[in-house]
Amino acid sequence: MSAEVEEMLKRFMGMKNIVGIIVVDYDGIAIKSTLDNTQSVLYAAHMHLLTEKARQVIFDLDATNEFTSMRMRTTYFEIMLMPLEHFFIIVLQNACD
Amino acid sequence: MSAEVEEMLKRFMGMKNIVGIIVVDYDGIAIKSTLDNTQSVLYAAHMHLLTEKARQVIFDLDATNEFTSMRMRTTYFEIMLMPLEHFFIIVLQNACD
Repeated sequence: MSAEVEEMLKRFMGMKNIVGIIVVDYDGIAIKSTLDNTQSVLYAAHMHLLTEKARQVIFDLDATNEFTSMRMRTTYFEIMLMPLEHFFIIVLQNACD
Repeated sequence: MSAEVEEMLKRFMGMKNIVGIIVVDYDGIAIKSTLDNTQSVLYAAHMHLLTEKARQVIFDLDATNEFTSMRMRTTYFEIMLMPLEHFFIIVLQNACD
């Protein structure tokens, strides 16, 4: 685990209303997580698919542009996706009031 | 075009740094747009795919949860996706300083 990832994790853990944080490599494997194993594997696999799709869509629209991050709202919480060089980070956060 | 969509469009057009707005039906067809035809068709098709993928991922993670909206950052601008009942809206916005 690189210092860059540790630093980001620390930063996110300090944020309000955090439900969970998962660090996933680009094979879709959860390499660090605050959720239980079942949830981590599930989120890692699905969010890996979505990250790859987002990257592809942005690239297809303009090959000089690049996907940087994503924030999704759902009924229950918000999901942030932040791709780094070797990993991407998933942050689940309860929506702020 | 329903009054609901017209109302949302008006609201987005009043926002700062808007690059373009496209209203797309769930067949992936752009039914209203401030971009040229080529760009509109391209965005409609790609964002349609991404919206469907996001919906599917959120549903697969928890069948009682629902995808509400998405904001993606790219190198050049931000893309917002807002699904409504019969349409979804794509808003392209230059990142705020």
